[in-house]
Amino acid sequence: MSVPVYRLDIAYDGSGFKGYARQDGVRTVQGELEGALETYLGGPVTTAVAGRTDAGVHARRQVVSFEFGGEPDLERLAKAINGIIGPEVSVLEVSRAGDGFNARHSAVWRRYRYRMDMRPSPDPLCRHLVWHVGRALDMGSMVSTGEVLVGEHDFTSFCRTVEGRSNVRRLTELTVDESEGRVDFWVQANAFCHQMVRSIVGYLYDVGRGFSDPARVAEVIASRDRSMVATVAPAHGLTLWEVGYDVSVRSKAGIPDLGH
Amino acid sequence: MSVPVYRLDIAYDGSGFKGYARQDGVRTVQGELEGALETYLGGPVTTAVAGRTDAGVHARRQVVSFEFGGEPDLERLAKAINGIIGPEVSVLEVSRAGDGFNARHSAVWRRYRYRMDMRPSPDPLCRHLVWHVGRALDMGSMVSTGEVLVGEHDFTSFCRTVEGRSNVRRLTELTVDESEGRVDFWVQANAFCHQMVRSIVGYLYDVGRGFSDPARVAEVIASRDRSMVATVAPAHGLTLWEVGYDVSVRSKAGIPDLGH
Repeated sequence: MSVPVYRLDIAYDGSGFKGYARQDGVRTVQGELEGALETYLGGPVTTAVAGRTDAGVHARRQVVSFEFGGEPDLERLAKAINGIIGPEVSVLEVSRAGDGFNARHSAVWRRYRYRMDMRPSPDPLCRHLVWHVGRALDMGSMVSTGEVLVGEHDFTSFCRTVEGRSNVRRLTELTVDESEGRVDFWVQANAFCHQMVRSIVGYLYDVGRGFSDPARVAEVIASRDRSMVATVAPAHGLTLWEVGYDVSVRSKAGIPDLGH
Repeated sequence: MSVPVYRLDIAYDGSGFKGYARQDGVRTVQGELEGALETYLGGPVTTAVAGRTDAGVHARRQVVSFEFGGEPDLERLAKAINGIIGPEVSVLEVSRAGDGFNARHSAVWRRYRYRMDMRPSPDPLCRHLVWHVGRALDMGSMVSTGEVLVGEHDFTSFCRTVEGRSNVRRLTELTVDESEGRVDFWVQANAFCHQMVRSIVGYLYDVGRGFSDPARVAEVIASRDRSMVATVAPAHGLTLWEVGYDVSVRSKAGIPDLGH
C-alpha cells in the first residue's frame, strides 16, 4: 500500500521571504512550512509545490503536497500549523489527496495576477502588492501585444534560462484589465519558466510607455534572446492566484467528479 | 484679504502610527505630515483634519486643510511631500480651497468601512486591514440591529465620552455586506464621537455571535451607558473611506457647482 498524500492550499505574503523554495540559511516559505509540519507531525516532511515563487512574490492560493504515514485530524492540522507559523503564511485548507497526487507534477495550469498602479500617487494600503509606476500607459498597445504572446511558444526571451531545459510553454490567457488607474494582468499557462510573468509584464510596460515597439513582439519571441527584454517587473506586484488540477485527480481528493 | 487655504486629500496605512493627531514624542500622521509640509514650504504649518483617526486606523481618502501665505506649485507640492514622507502616507491630491474652508468644520459627512473576515483561516495579504474573527456570524441579526442604529441618537453607549460634549450624531447609513466570508460594514454619519464605529461594529459582532440580544438594541441606545457595549472592534479593520463637503464649499475649490 502506498503512503497517504495530503494537499495543503496556502496563502502567503512574500514580502519577508527569500522566495518559496527552501535554501540553507535563509527564510523561505517552504522552510517555515516544513518546519511547522515537522513540529506538529513529529517526523520529517518533504513537500512538493505547484509554483516555486521568487523572493517577494505572494500567493493567494498555492498548492503543496506531502506524503505522511499517519492519520492526522485535518481540521486540527490547519489550525495547528496556522498557530505555529505566524501571520505571513496561512493554511487555507487541508485535504487527503488521491494516490500519486503531486502538487507540482499533477498541476495542469497556473494562474497569476500582476497588479500595477498608473495613478500619480501611490496607495499606502496596498503598497506591498502593487507596482506603482505612477504614469499613464497605452492600454491598447499593451493589450494587442499581449494577444500575440498567447499560444504555445518558446519563451526563452522572457525567461531566466536554466541550461538544458526547454522554455516552451502554452500561454492560455493574458488579459489586461484597467480600473480607475489600476492595471491587472491575468496570466495563465500550463507552466511558467523562471521570471516569465515578470518579464512579460516588464515587456508590456515598456510597450505601454512607448519604449518598445509593439509591432516587434513576434520578432522578440522568435529571437529567443533574453537581452531583447529590458525590463523585469518587480516581484512585489505578483501574486500566484490559483492552480488547476485534472478533475480525475481532484475527484480522488474527495471532490465529486461531475463528469457529465 | 484672507490667507489662502489649501486642501490635501491623503491616504495612509495607520499600522505604524499612534493615530492621526499630533502628540509630543510619538509618531503620528499629523506630526509626519506637518513636518514634511514645513520642510518643503519653509515655514510653520498647522493643519485641520476631517477625521482624527485612532492609533492603527487607516485612511483611503482623508481630508486635511491648512493656511499658507505663499503660492506653491500644487502638483509639485504633492510629489515633494510624497518624496519626503515615506510609503505609509500618500498625498493623493492638492487643491486650493475656498476662503474659510476647514477640513474639519466644513465636512458634512464622514464614511468609514470596517472589514471583518469570518473564514477559518486568516488572509496574510490583507492582515493589516481586516479583523479576522474566524467564525460564522448571524448576518440577519447584524443587519436588523444595524437598521435600528440608523438615525439621530445620543450615541453615549457607543462612545468613549469626552466630559461635557454631546454624543448626539446622525447616522445616515449602516450597511452590512457579505461576500465569500468577508463582511464589510459601511458606516456614514454627519460626524462620529470617539471609538463610535469600532463600538458599533463590536456590538454587531456580539449580536452576530449570539452574545448580545438583537431585540435589546433600542434599550442599549436609550441607556446612554457605555458599559452596555462590551466589545470594541480592533483598530486595524477600520478605514476612513471618504469625507463629504457641501457643494457650495467644493465649488469654491474649483469644482463646478452642478446645482440643477
